[in-house]
Amino acid sequence: MESDRGGQAHAPYDHPLALTPLALTMGDPAGIGPEITLCAWSSRSAHQLAPFVVYGDPHMLEQRARALGVDVPVSSVGSFDDIATVFETALPVVPVKIAVPVIAGKPDGANSAAIIMAIEQAVTDIASGKARAVVTNPIAKSVLYEAGFAYPGHTEFLSALAAKHWPGLRHRPVMMLASESLRVVPLTIHVPLKDVPPLITRDLIAETVRILSAALTSDFGIGAPRIAICGLNPHAGEGGALGREEVDIIAPAIRDLQNEGFALTGPHSADTLFREAARRTYDCVIAMYHDQALIPLKTLAFDQGVNITLGLPFVRTSPDHGTAFNIAAEGRASALSLINALKVADQMSVRRAAALS
Amino acid sequence: MESDRGGQAHAPYDHPLALTPLALTMGDPAGIGPEITLCAWSSRSAHQLAPFVVYGDPHMLEQRARALGVDVPVSSVGSFDDIATVFETALPVVPVKIAVPVIAGKPDGANSAAIIMAIEQAVTDIASGKARAVVTNPIAKSVLYEAGFAYPGHTEFLSALAAKHWPGLRHRPVMMLASESLRVVPLTIHVPLKDVPPLITRDLIAETVRILSAALTSDFGIGAPRIAICGLNPHAGEGGALGREEVDIIAPAIRDLQNEGFALTGPHSADTLFREAARRTYDCVIAMYHDQALIPLKTLAFDQGVNITLGLPFVRTSPDHGTAFNIAAEGRASALSLINALKVADQMSVRRAAALS
Repeated sequence: MESDRGGQAHAPYDHPLALTPLALTMGDPAGIGPEITLCAWSSRSAHQLAPFVVYGDPHMLEQRARALGVDVPVSSVGSFDDIATVFETALPVVPVKIAVPVIAGKPDGANSAAIIMAIEQAVTDIASGKARAVVTNPIAKSVLYEAGFAYPGHTEFLSALAAKHWPGLRHRPVMMLASESLRVVPLTIHVPLKDVPPLITRDLIAETVRILSAALTSDFGIGAPRIAICGLNPHAGEGGALGREEVDIIAPAIRDLQNEGFALTGPHSADTLFREAARRTYDCVIAMYHDQALIPLKTLAFDQGVNITLGLPFVRTSPDHGTAFNIAAEGRASALSLINALKVADQMSVRRAAALS
Repeated sequence: MESDRGGQAHAPYDHPLALTPLALTMGDPAGIGPEITLCAWSSRSAHQLAPFVVYGDPHMLEQRARALGVDVPVSSVGSFDDIATVFETALPVVPVKIAVPVIAGKPDGANSAAIIMAIEQAVTDIASGKARAVVTNPIAKSVLYEAGFAYPGHTEFLSALAAKHWPGLRHRPVMMLASESLRVVPLTIHVPLKDVPPLITRDLIAETVRILSAALTSDFGIGAPRIAICGLNPHAGEGGALGREEVDIIAPAIRDLQNEGFALTGPHSADTLFREAARRTYDCVIAMYHDQALIPLKTLAFDQGVNITLGLPFVRTSPDHGTAFNIAAEGRASALSLINALKVADQMSVRRAAALS
């Protein structure tokens, strides 16, 4: 990706938003969320991180810091006014008390209410202007389901919170994965492969292109975004010989959108679209399904990817990994994806605010 | 890939086979085959290429060399006895005359018979021991179809020639893609994505594992090959929540084969299986479909991949690209994939001969 096309150049710190903190939710405290959070704060200078505030249990974070032998003072936040100052010497935490003590690696449904409350409170504070973007640590959906959580995942829950706090504002979440070398949006996500082909429609492509294109401009500062669209089938269907979806659905959708002025190309053979030379020709790829998007992203930059939700009334990012209960509190989890998620949320929220002002 | 696990270390040149040439077919002479062939011969010293003989039209090759301004003496082969010596100073060619002059970039059905004859003659010479492995330059299937070619592609034609020359020997071609960093076998290849799920069967997985495992040992010198098998669905189906094929078909097939002693792992989430750390844990991946195999291969090493047909009574490799009519005779085609195909055919055929002796 060219550095002058919305790369990860640092956000301008003289922007008024720079003092408004990012909201980082604790995620499942039995996973690696707490330790990568502590590690991110510890590396705030090295990575020039913008101030962030954690929504979680301060006592739990102190305990995890002690267990890992890292020196991270934790400061419970009263007022948001001096968070940027506090952040220099301590990890600011909006207290969300957990119900039972955490055993690393052993998620406990009794703490589900606190995990959910942390997300709710973060969005509430964004709605009131106290915080400017949400970065979510990983949750374990199956644990939350047992506790009655009614949403398939983070994204749907955040969408419901958006509807509550921004009533009347139409929105539609679109998932993007981003690293230094690639941005990619999967058109379908967590569905069995056999269910993918019927989900590919002209409407879905058009809606996704509109949301993505607007976000590339407002959140990534790309004036005329270039979007490359994958085919569904091998060799993008080879003119219909290896599948009809390109001929019947994807190519017509692209033509219509090109006529509206979008800078689209495709349908491309997915296998050759992620080589280095090809990556220079677009700002983002729209892939047709999960692995078509995630294989190149994770092959190129395994632990550096960031998960971004476009199309919400607020900026949301997260690290591109799960709770990793199997290595929790062992001190071996990489904080790089979370650190990148914090950086990207910082840049996106500043750019979006500038675009709207 | 670890260098001690069947890497591309050079074949031993004191092996008696080293003087038996590789058979390189001309492919469609209107494509880039002739120029990458000339380029490969010109770089025979730099790449320490084993002697190869081209099955094609000597006059056409001389013309292309002149057109490109490269100095490649062409030598029509009478006897195979001194090919290794000829190869030092000229490109040895078994003459297969084309019917009409070639216009680069404009395939002509009138030359289809010669294109096909070159492949037939190469296999005939391998069967009689004159040559030791076949490397095929790209053909344009649609052009050959118009001329009455009755096979879906190279592989099926080579399989028919194998049945003719090795009657009674049971064989089944299996496609492998290989580069320095990855070997991968797609379980299904040129079929529409919607047709992939019903093609995934326990029998197909078992047959593919047996052929692949035997080839990794005999052709790549890997004693106890480690094979990683992808899931079909996102997150390998997440225990059935995102698709049943892993639970119902892939995992049981893997268990049965593990019980037989094969060193298999999986079904793996395909998105994380191609990162660098994961690639050190296996010698080859079996992917469920075309793009799942080809995206990581071409993302990691775009113009260096080699297409290998396992499971034939002879070694066959080819460059991992097509005829590229659009850039034919412009001198911009990369010969790297063909050069790698020649190297891999050299190594595989020596290793196989050693394993059989």
